[in-house]
Amino acid sequence: MIHDNLFKELHSAISEIVLIDPHTHIDPHRPASRTLDDILGYHYYTELAHSAGMTQEPLAASVPPRERVRAILAHMPRYDNTAQYAWFLDICRTFLGYDGDRVNPADADWLFDAAERLMAQPDWEQQVLTRSKLEAVFLTNEFDDRLEGFDTTRYIPCLRTDDLVFKLDQPSVRQRLAKATGIEVGDAKSVRLAVSKLFAHFAARGARACAISLPPDFSPRPVTEFDLNSDPATRASGVFWMLAEHCREFQLPFDLMIGVNRRVYRNGVYQGQDLFDSRTSLMLYAELFNAFPSVPFCVSVLSSTINQELCSFAWIFPNVITSGHWWYANVPAFIRPDLAARLQAVPKTKQLGYYSDMYKLEFGLPKFNMYRRVLAGVLADDFVRTGQLSVDRAVELARFVLRDNVRSIFRV
Amino acid sequence: MIHDNLFKELHSAISEIVLIDPHTHIDPHRPASRTLDDILGYHYYTELAHSAGMTQEPLAASVPPRERVRAILAHMPRYDNTAQYAWFLDICRTFLGYDGDRVNPADADWLFDAAERLMAQPDWEQQVLTRSKLEAVFLTNEFDDRLEGFDTTRYIPCLRTDDLVFKLDQPSVRQRLAKATGIEVGDAKSVRLAVSKLFAHFAARGARACAISLPPDFSPRPVTEFDLNSDPATRASGVFWMLAEHCREFQLPFDLMIGVNRRVYRNGVYQGQDLFDSRTSLMLYAELFNAFPSVPFCVSVLSSTINQELCSFAWIFPNVITSGHWWYANVPAFIRPDLAARLQAVPKTKQLGYYSDMYKLEFGLPKFNMYRRVLAGVLADDFVRTGQLSVDRAVELARFVLRDNVRSIFRV
Amino acid sequence: MIHDNLFKELHSAISEIVLIDPHTHIDPHRPASRTLDDILGYHYYTELAHSAGMTQEPLAASVPPRERVRAILAHMPRYDNTAQYAWFLDICRTFLGYDGDRVNPADADWLFDAAERLMAQPDWEQQVLTRSKLEAVFLTNEFDDRLEGFDTTRYIPCLRTDDLVFKLDQPSVRQRLAKATGIEVGDAKSVRLAVSKLFAHFAARGARACAISLPPDFSPRPVTEFDLNSDPATRASGVFWMLAEHCREFQLPFDLMIGVNRRVYRNGVYQGQDLFDSRTSLMLYAELFNAFPSVPFCVSVLSSTINQELCSFAWIFPNVITSGHWWYANVPAFIRPDLAARLQAVPKTKQLGYYSDMYKLEFGLPKFNMYRRVLAGVLADDFVRTGQLSVDRAVELARFVLRDNVRSIFRV
Repeated sequence: MIHDNLFKELHSAISEIVLIDPHTHIDPHRPASRTLDDILGYHYYTELAHSAGMTQEPLAASVPPRERVRAILAHMPRYDNTAQYAWFLDICRTFLGYDGDRVNPADADWLFDAAERLMAQPDWEQQVLTRSKLEAVFLTNEFDDRLEGFDTTRYIPCLRTDDLVFKLDQPSVRQRLAKATGIEVGDAKSVRLAVSKLFAHFAARGARACAISLPPDFSPRPVTEFDLNSDPATRASGVFWMLAEHCREFQLPFDLMIGVNRRVYRNGVYQGQDLFDSRTSLMLYAELFNAFPSVPFCVSVLSSTINQELCSFAWIFPNVITSGHWWYANVPAFIRPDLAARLQAVPKTKQLGYYSDMYKLEFGLPKFNMYRRVLAGVLADDFVRTGQLSVDRAVELARFVLRDNVRSIFRV
Repeated sequence: MIHDNLFKELHSAISEIVLIDPHTHIDPHRPASRTLDDILGYHYYTELAHSAGMTQEPLAASVPPRERVRAILAHMPRYDNTAQYAWFLDICRTFLGYDGDRVNPADADWLFDAAERLMAQPDWEQQVLTRSKLEAVFLTNEFDDRLEGFDTTRYIPCLRTDDLVFKLDQPSVRQRLAKATGIEVGDAKSVRLAVSKLFAHFAARGARACAISLPPDFSPRPVTEFDLNSDPATRASGVFWMLAEHCREFQLPFDLMIGVNRRVYRNGVYQGQDLFDSRTSLMLYAELFNAFPSVPFCVSVLSSTINQELCSFAWIFPNVITSGHWWYANVPAFIRPDLAARLQAVPKTKQLGYYSDMYKLEFGLPKFNMYRRVLAGVLADDFVRTGQLSVDRAVELARFVLRDNVRSIFRV
Repeated sequence: MIHDNLFKELHSAISEIVLIDPHTHIDPHRPASRTLDDILGYHYYTELAHSAGMTQEPLAASVPPRERVRAILAHMPRYDNTAQYAWFLDICRTFLGYDGDRVNPADADWLFDAAERLMAQPDWEQQVLTRSKLEAVFLTNEFDDRLEGFDTTRYIPCLRTDDLVFKLDQPSVRQRLAKATGIEVGDAKSVRLAVSKLFAHFAARGARACAISLPPDFSPRPVTEFDLNSDPATRASGVFWMLAEHCREFQLPFDLMIGVNRRVYRNGVYQGQDLFDSRTSLMLYAELFNAFPSVPFCVSVLSSTINQELCSFAWIFPNVITSGHWWYANVPAFIRPDLAARLQAVPKTKQLGYYSDMYKLEFGLPKFNMYRRVLAGVLADDFVRTGQLSVDRAVELARFVLRDNVRSIFRV
């Protein structure tokens, strides 16, 4: 990637595009951070600090936020080579007035105080959204979320279905479902009734997607008869297939986030225990894609090794959409080749370029910044320099993957 | 990839190399296009248009060619980011006199008329070959092809064996085989007799290779006893092994195109239904490579994730040759890393750099252009800039992978 | 990778770092080469020459070294595109006074004579170490090595355990074990006793690591009861788990070199028969990593396709360390993306950047040269040009991966 004038021109133009972030974990009742602990409590920092030697003691709820921040920052010199450190530096500079070039443990108190002061401003949320050029962000709502008390055009609901597919055998999940729908589920028929109620509720509140994360060996197949006593794989397929049917009925895209194994490192920090097995394939989803031609499947893959499959499936199946760069694949070293392949092989109307996956609004800016730099580099090197696109048309391509496709695919 | 003077010098020198295209689907009785419909009817365009939203109606045989072209071009603005669009633009500029910088739906009639006029010239085939610097192209002939009525030094026969290996249980295939050889096959012995006749026929007509495409789970093993009632895997291995024995006897290289699953998207357009499962390995072929040390196996892989295996197998096994960049791996984003690895790890005499896989001659030029740009970039960045090779020797390396190895490996 | 002043400045600074090579196959009693045959007898050259057409005749012990060298050089024009050729050219220039720009078969005698003369110097070993900036190198010692007669601070012992895990059923291995420990092993208890003796011996002689290479389908699990009659997988897991327990007890890091299949090309040259199956996953080691939190596992992977897994496991598990670029992955085309991902995703204190894997000292310099060029390029392009690191801090990062981490992880 050459940082010349062409790159800068593209990067500058791309940075003007107003964003709709199609996948986040924002809490609409508390979207922005209130302290630096909200920033550094993000699992990326707790897990990197822990991986680099920090015990879990500072992460206990009883530890004062300022001390936790000090502990995480104390270990930062061991992981300040990472993309996640670069996000943090970007946040410190953009939002906290930091002007150093290397965040040090000694900065802990100054940063903590600055964050406390700035984030206490009543319009902090709006400031962050404006500076980040974020017009709207998608949420990831549990199925029993009431979806009340927030502006659903700014914070767009999305039905998360992991619990329904993989945990319906747990009494607590069934109780939540009963509370949300009034239905005590048992057989497939009752589950269908409950799911219909959930979809109707979410659709009425402006939901624009259904979403789920899936283990690498998941292989959905049509199952019509199942109940709570069925084996887990059968039940999971049964519920999953039913969700796809409802996506079709309610005209909702289905976000498939493929490939995560949960609780692999059992003593890891909160949200820092999951990993993946790269021995997976989109062939496991071929029947699904065939069965629901009218449902847009927005596919994220955790293992970059199946990015070529993703490109090829999106190239062939009209209903397969490439979606973002997820989690362990969300560093420039993987984004760059994955993105280049998608831009060269998949119709430009079928690519959701990026989502932040953030829990707090402040992360939208540095994450999209990372993506925009890679995008500008790929457009410069692979499209403009090769003569395939003019600068204007390269920016137009960027607008498709950053904004227009979110609007058209999710009907925003 | 830096587009500087070094790149240009290399690219210019490489572009002078006269080509022998070692794998195409050219019909020697009608090698060049006659209308723009022959160009845009290529499955790359029909499948991309369909993936981007086009129904299959315009593809019906009853639809006039001009209307089909209009429909495919009408969807092109949705996929004009792709490598395939770049091929088409290259064809329009080089062969059709187009001088715009973005092919639009509005260009449909002008392009259609230009193509009709130009392609009607009696020497069109020769014009295309000359401009494309194509000296000869390999065909992919069905086993019952008579191989008559064309110049076999320009259009070099190659025995395609997919049907023999995977469809011998179908009566229609057995009838074709009986008609071609006079042998009604049943047991392994009769199959061997028929295969021997086919090889003798192809060898007599100047065939220079045997070829087959294989699914990702295919695992050939020596099977001596089988018949038409054997299970499909046994029968396939039995016939396949027999083909390898005949390659040995007739001194023909065996092109293995590894990794395609057929009819994955069942409602896809013609030739736009196949995909792949990246969970495959060349280890499945280890016994084959051991068993036939005198047979050159020219291996193409569909999944770029096994390119490292291909490099390593070609580095270790004297009879394993790397061959081209196939289908879904045939975009610069995959060619570049795959090519760089091969050039750094595999003896230069054992690499078939590229083949076009084309159905019509006009595609040789844009496809080899794409490859030559990547090749010039890799040579510039990884070999000349690093001091390993001079410009002259880098061009010499290009000549091995683009021309000399085709001649030496296939004895052309 | 741009070869500009920034690259040169970084490369120059990185080249000043004094190295400790954390994995080699050096024989401490004969660490340097004595003839050119010691150089070109390295399996990289014999296997490439054989792959490119050389018979195995010149490799017979009865063939005079000079003739063997001539034969291998005679085939070099067929593989002088490879990274291995570049190492050889580097050796010829740096150590043998060669000043041509292309080693030719005609250079054989001159080079052979120059090598013979230069390598006969009594301080040759020291000259090579000094010019290569090598302070110390790790060995790979068979379990019954007496570890005597050499300076263990320069040549650091490392217990290689392949035979214990995979060949304990062989009488010759048990006899060697009995001779080394005085224990005739049979059941798990006796194996444990013998292993304890080995660890005590190695620890007393300054060993700093335990090491093993593993096939791609190896999946260690806790096995407490096994004996020599157990099935191979159970016995292998039993011994392996026991080794991990001893690493914990003796505070030794465990080098896991994951993914090699032995004797795939059965008629290959010595050490040129092994390949790999990329269908593997670090998930096979999840239980191991969980079970031994205090043991640093230094993980090398043969298949570059699991580099993302390696990055992610090292990012999450405190006891997983990324280690070098092994064998078939040890060419710039794989090092570059693998390294970039590690530098962006793994705490910098948990990365062992490179080891030479060499059998003779002369290979340290060209192999580390190759790595340093890639490292300088990644630091320039991904860290300094992007504004994440200053030049000084980029060099500091290089020092971690090239030197400091070897010292801290192996307690050197």
